[in-house]
Amino acid sequence: MPKIQKPEKVRPALPSGFRDFGPAEVRRRRAAFQTLAQIFERYGYEPLETPAVELLSVLMGKYGEEGDKLLFRILNSGDFLANVPEEAKASTATLLPFITEKALRYDLTVPMARWVAQHAGELVFPFKRYQIQPVWRADRPQRGRFREFYQCDVDIVGAEGLIPLMEMIEIARAGLGALGVRGAVFHLNHRALLEHAARDTGWPLSQFSAFCTRLDKAEKVGWQPVKALFQEEGYLLPEWLNPEEGFSSTLQAELSKLPELAPDLPTLNELIRTEDPVLTVRWDSTLARGLEYYTGYVYEIRVPGSGVGSIAAGGAYASLVSDFGGPDLPAMGLSFGIERILTFTEAQSPPDTSALQVLVAWIDASPRFVQKVVKTLHEGGIPAFAYPAPKKLSKQIEYAQRRGIRWVAIVGAQEEATQSVQLRDLPNHVQTTVPLDALATACR
Amino acid sequence: MPKIQKPEKVRPALPSGFRDFGPAEVRRRRAAFQTLAQIFERYGYEPLETPAVELLSVLMGKYGEEGDKLLFRILNSGDFLANVPEEAKASTATLLPFITEKALRYDLTVPMARWVAQHAGELVFPFKRYQIQPVWRADRPQRGRFREFYQCDVDIVGAEGLIPLMEMIEIARAGLGALGVRGAVFHLNHRALLEHAARDTGWPLSQFSAFCTRLDKAEKVGWQPVKALFQEEGYLLPEWLNPEEGFSSTLQAELSKLPELAPDLPTLNELIRTEDPVLTVRWDSTLARGLEYYTGYVYEIRVPGSGVGSIAAGGAYASLVSDFGGPDLPAMGLSFGIERILTFTEAQSPPDTSALQVLVAWIDASPRFVQKVVKTLHEGGIPAFAYPAPKKLSKQIEYAQRRGIRWVAIVGAQEEATQSVQLRDLPNHVQTTVPLDALATACR
Repeated sequence: MPKIQKPEKVRPALPSGFRDFGPAEVRRRRAAFQTLAQIFERYGYEPLETPAVELLSVLMGKYGEEGDKLLFRILNSGDFLANVPEEAKASTATLLPFITEKALRYDLTVPMARWVAQHAGELVFPFKRYQIQPVWRADRPQRGRFREFYQCDVDIVGAEGLIPLMEMIEIARAGLGALGVRGAVFHLNHRALLEHAARDTGWPLSQFSAFCTRLDKAEKVGWQPVKALFQEEGYLLPEWLNPEEGFSSTLQAELSKLPELAPDLPTLNELIRTEDPVLTVRWDSTLARGLEYYTGYVYEIRVPGSGVGSIAAGGAYASLVSDFGGPDLPAMGLSFGIERILTFTEAQSPPDTSALQVLVAWIDASPRFVQKVVKTLHEGGIPAFAYPAPKKLSKQIEYAQRRGIRWVAIVGAQEEATQSVQLRDLPNHVQTTVPLDALATACR
Repeated sequence: MPKIQKPEKVRPALPSGFRDFGPAEVRRRRAAFQTLAQIFERYGYEPLETPAVELLSVLMGKYGEEGDKLLFRILNSGDFLANVPEEAKASTATLLPFITEKALRYDLTVPMARWVAQHAGELVFPFKRYQIQPVWRADRPQRGRFREFYQCDVDIVGAEGLIPLMEMIEIARAGLGALGVRGAVFHLNHRALLEHAARDTGWPLSQFSAFCTRLDKAEKVGWQPVKALFQEEGYLLPEWLNPEEGFSSTLQAELSKLPELAPDLPTLNELIRTEDPVLTVRWDSTLARGLEYYTGYVYEIRVPGSGVGSIAAGGAYASLVSDFGGPDLPAMGLSFGIERILTFTEAQSPPDTSALQVLVAWIDASPRFVQKVVKTLHEGGIPAFAYPAPKKLSKQIEYAQRRGIRWVAIVGAQEEATQSVQLRDLPNHVQTTVPLDALATACR
């Protein structure tokens, strides 16, 4: 057969930070996604899917300066350099705007906000959606950190506050419980408290996010170094701000001063005192969350000793939909880092219920009869397929053994003439003649 | 709350050729994917998932020159222009190799072949896998042609020929039938016949693919113009090569001369004579298939009058795995263009079985009691959630009506005291007091 000139043999490899998933992994991941989807639907969230590719104008400026750098940008098609002025070719920064206008999505929240802004007229608010899709980040690949990974998000748009917060906690509890997680901690804080802390400290409010970034380091480096850092620069953090003291009475006294939080205090008290084997809520007065758009409650779920960082996170955010010209709606969400969860939970691949039960091995039967045997089995609800060619019988049987198939239905001219098969039960070393119309029953 | 300086409001829009899918569409698409997956598993195909992004070295040269141009290339991260020699900036072609090394996957066959080459040592051959994932092509968007779309592929690696062909036909028939397609036609041909035709015509075999490309035009422009074109250039196509005559006896006489096809003739005869309401097999002696890698049987499924082109296609290919340094294995596959199928089938979104049944509306109950009511319903197997805030009751009820929720469980201080709810049946305008422990039963 004449062939197109082929390039040299290519080394089969993946770009770093990307992964394949073989059969067992796909089944396990799919089962986890389905578990979460069912829980989301139980709470009235509806599925949404957005494309992998978004306009840069939609994505830029939403994830902070660092996030902008981590976008996987897509090169414009065709002769993208044709109309670029010579001086723009001087540097990456000047060339960029000319040669790329799209990127892979970085998270699922911004695409959702974009979609809500586009469909606000048709939606019933509060609008509740969930979304389970991969996202891409040009991060440095590390152990457990990939450049393509799934997020599982629920968001409610048009509401925030205590009831949505309690719903997020319950969804997290149900989801993590179903995935086999135990001993998780829901770290909870509110941006109003952080702002109150910044004021108390005398920190300039114009640099509020720098204040938050420093506090947020406490999780990694510990609380004393963070306190010391502030002190060195002449800022004395208030005593009640102390992640180690949890929901102390002095902290509660501060919360009671804040109009955003005072009415919630009795419920928060209950939430935090409830013991639960899957998920316990703790107040964490230094939790700040990296992303810039949160405005109310913020939260992050961790499992001490799991060896991974946060396994879910979210918060209330005010202006994301209005950034796209949509209505000014508060919103609240929770994002599961399900891939991290799967790295340390014991959950196995679900039993392969459709595991192949019968291999039709054939010697000198007609292809039509071989096909008829397969069809008979399918009609009886038994997964089955024929070995693709009439090779040596021992080879066909070895194939069934290696794939873990229990039954081999052997057919030759003799069986075709009598409309029957030789049915071999591999693990039990038994072989019997079975008429075609009794075959499906015999394989149960 | 002090805020990061935000960019101006951004017009919410999608890049052309990309789509969002709202709740009803996601449910409908998901059901279709699941239907096909179940059929694939019944025939012993196992799921595989590969990443969205592949190395250009893996993708280039696999889809012909046109395909290379349609790859969505990803710009290298960081200061990608830093080490590019000045002269390379002269043109798109010279700059390209320096600034991009990855692209979005163009189909699912090449990534599968790459994976098989990498895992050949662990696999049991023939290896059967299916894969349902999106692919991306920088094609000109048109009505019904998108730049991101799902493919649903089955491939068997390590086998080809008649039994796999019959399996592909049966899978197509079962899949299309389940998706509501009727009257589809499986156009079948074999590369050996095309080669035989080229020889008969006196066409130079070194330009075999140009011969195929011309024949392939018959589907669009009709057979006479194609014949005329050959004639103008001095090539007389053999009489038996005629898509309008189907499986004629003269064609069969030609097939019987070919060692690749002669033994299959009796079975082909039967396949082609079988009448079926979903899918009928027709021999199409001019079918050539665009992609370059097919070497044996080729096929394409169309539905006359559906308004879309081919809805599934595939064939046998010899060298894809060995191109990656893997073993030299024949292979055969079928790819469903499920998105096209969904454009013309009547299949509706499956009934939303998890549709929300109860909205908990609240006035002056405690958040804890509101949550308790929701939990009680969930424990009784009833989907439910609370309205996020104690707004005016009429507003909460209107929300339930607009979302199509039948029951509203109204709770206030009185109900909390008596551990009951006012249960309103919206369509029937009935409201009764129901104790909490009888609530789930009352909502069935």
